[in-house]
Amino acid sequence: MDFSKEVREKSSLAHIRQASPLVHCITNYVVSNVTANGLLAIGASPVMADELEEVQEMVSIAGGLLLNIGTLNARTTDSMLAAGKQANRLGIPVVLDPVGVGATSYRQRFVQRLLSEINFDLLRCNRGELAAIAGVAWQSRGVDSGEGSQDIKEIAKQVAKQYRCLVAVTGDWDYVTDGEREAMITGGDIRMTAVTGMGCLLSAICAAALSLPGDRFKHLQGVLQDYKLAAEIAGAQPKIGSFQVEIMNALEQLSAGERL
Amino acid sequence: MDFSKEVREKSSLAHIRQASPLVHCITNYVVSNVTANGLLAIGASPVMADELEEVQEMVSIAGGLLLNIGTLNARTTDSMLAAGKQANRLGIPVVLDPVGVGATSYRQRFVQRLLSEINFDLLRCNRGELAAIAGVAWQSRGVDSGEGSQDIKEIAKQVAKQYRCLVAVTGDWDYVTDGEREAMITGGDIRMTAVTGMGCLLSAICAAALSLPGDRFKHLQGVLQDYKLAAEIAGAQPKIGSFQVEIMNALEQLSAGERL
Amino acid sequence: MDFSKEVREKSSLAHIRQASPLVHCITNYVVSNVTANGLLAIGASPVMADELEEVQEMVSIAGGLLLNIGTLNARTTDSMLAAGKQANRLGIPVVLDPVGVGATSYRQRFVQRLLSEINFDLLRCNRGELAAIAGVAWQSRGVDSGEGSQDIKEIAKQVAKQYRCLVAVTGDWDYVTDGEREAMITGGDIRMTAVTGMGCLLSAICAAALSLPGDRFKHLQGVLQDYKLAAEIAGAQPKIGSFQVEIMNALEQLSAGERL
Repeated sequence: MDFSKEVREKSSLAHIRQASPLVHCITNYVVSNVTANGLLAIGASPVMADELEEVQEMVSIAGGLLLNIGTLNARTTDSMLAAGKQANRLGIPVVLDPVGVGATSYRQRFVQRLLSEINFDLLRCNRGELAAIAGVAWQSRGVDSGEGSQDIKEIAKQVAKQYRCLVAVTGDWDYVTDGEREAMITGGDIRMTAVTGMGCLLSAICAAALSLPGDRFKHLQGVLQDYKLAAEIAGAQPKIGSFQVEIMNALEQLSAGERL
Repeated sequence: MDFSKEVREKSSLAHIRQASPLVHCITNYVVSNVTANGLLAIGASPVMADELEEVQEMVSIAGGLLLNIGTLNARTTDSMLAAGKQANRLGIPVVLDPVGVGATSYRQRFVQRLLSEINFDLLRCNRGELAAIAGVAWQSRGVDSGEGSQDIKEIAKQVAKQYRCLVAVTGDWDYVTDGEREAMITGGDIRMTAVTGMGCLLSAICAAALSLPGDRFKHLQGVLQDYKLAAEIAGAQPKIGSFQVEIMNALEQLSAGERL
Repeated sequence: MDFSKEVREKSSLAHIRQASPLVHCITNYVVSNVTANGLLAIGASPVMADELEEVQEMVSIAGGLLLNIGTLNARTTDSMLAAGKQANRLGIPVVLDPVGVGATSYRQRFVQRLLSEINFDLLRCNRGELAAIAGVAWQSRGVDSGEGSQDIKEIAKQVAKQYRCLVAVTGDWDYVTDGEREAMITGGDIRMTAVTGMGCLLSAICAAALSLPGDRFKHLQGVLQDYKLAAEIAGAQPKIGSFQVEIMNALEQLSAGERL
């Protein structure tokens, strides 16, 4: 079976449903419910566990690990470090979502520590977070976030090379790179930014995608495309509360069927 | 008034609405919102409080206590033990939901400690969790989880006898026993497993049911039947996000009216 | 531009959308998701952060701070005190939501400490919580909570004077006072009490309202009116799960357009 051919024929979310990976999420309490439900909607299995005494054992049975610093605290920092290192030892893919890393020096310091002690497979962030991470390494620089901004792309490539990981910067357009290969994904719906946790859920879905066999870059690109498409399908619903419900419906739909 | 007659005429959820018990939940942060909303949907009153300094006082005003280990941590283990012991002293019913107990030794050890230090009125779990709990006591054994599996039933009866509590094992079919009496409940909708917290919410509703006067076994059996029925009503909705909304609608509907 | 004239022409929620304030919430994990989504629905920006090491820095970039004790614990008490004091130093408005303060002595003691160490701009609570707070200061007294109860109004005025803050007591009718000025708001939908976090979200929206330039009393009165109106709009939906969705839809609608 030619897997790369399958990727073209089936949606990436459908591949996740077929594999049904267990995704261990150490994430913030604001989005934990929508993250779990979003993973379930595409046929993946979420497990949330953040106690230091158990995270190493929990991650050992997972297909992927997500570290999300949205409500970082003294208790979960140690758990994230322990889980990430164990995932590295076992070859389990690890995704970092550096929520609001630019907002406080506490987050900046901890993200730098994570990046220095853990080998991440993917950094999934928005443009401001990318700039904050890059700024720490290369001093601050102006960031033009206009469509297809060359600055953003260059910074993403540099960060990908520096940390030897994939970088997915998402927003009104997405960009994914491993430092050499690159892809732009457009589309979606602006209201995704008006629903809490949509970026966080995407990071969790990326962790599921990285657990699949085959070309990781292509899986990520496919997942980002599917997520944009889900937003567009949900976008038929003009009201924000109903839009939230429709996102779950659309994710399920895309994971169940063929790529449109 | 013949209460057992009422049980037959009204749904168990309607009895909960009539009594409106306060249910103290020490539960995981992933499902706390849906648990609170589900209890409110059937007319019960939820209170979530997990700080050691206040749980004994909080449980004292409650009609039932739920201990759920979904996101167990060093801070909440002590709170669970203190709340459970206080509930025992005051004769307030206590329900254990041993989420993912088989996944880590940390959870296994803590569940064993809970079972040895607290008298639970009900263990509400799925088949894997039941096997993990039983396995600790009787070494591991093969578990056939096919429909109406004799193994599951026997293990549930043994656990019920060992811990002198009711045991409700739920899944595509449910089984409830006190070690002697037993009941099977079928029906429901497979998609309940694709929504996070549906088992956790059921455990909270069971805590509400145990606070009612009358035959506890019959109340539990009635609640499990109503929950299956709610899933079937919601099941008219083919999409998972909308299905989540419809579960709340169906729980409210069943608690408001007569048994169908 | 005459701002007070604008207040009459545009809804208070529309003013919030226009200003798009960042609201720092240290709130309970049960309602954090609905609080974030509710703030986003009216165009405000939520940030949840409760770690002592970062709350002072985080609140410095916020337009308003909410302290909500719903799942108070030893870790967050210090964070609340530090964030509140920093907000006071910087002139950032602070709202207290004393969830269930009457339920345990732990909550009562901590709320008294908050009130003695932090200058709150607003206390947003229900009648029982108001009585508990007042009871500590003036010993317990009977509280008549009938419509337009003089007792409630007098207690609210006394508390407003004692703590030099606005007080908004909400329920089937709302009352807001600064100790001298006062306003009653009626309307709404009784089912707001059957959805978890509706009072908590209102407190967060009030924090957003207090960040606006102009007359704070009028902003609060306007927000309470808009919230009642949102409940009435959602009230067209007879089922509780769907009602939850419609509240978000209605909040977005009111923030987008003219006052009806």
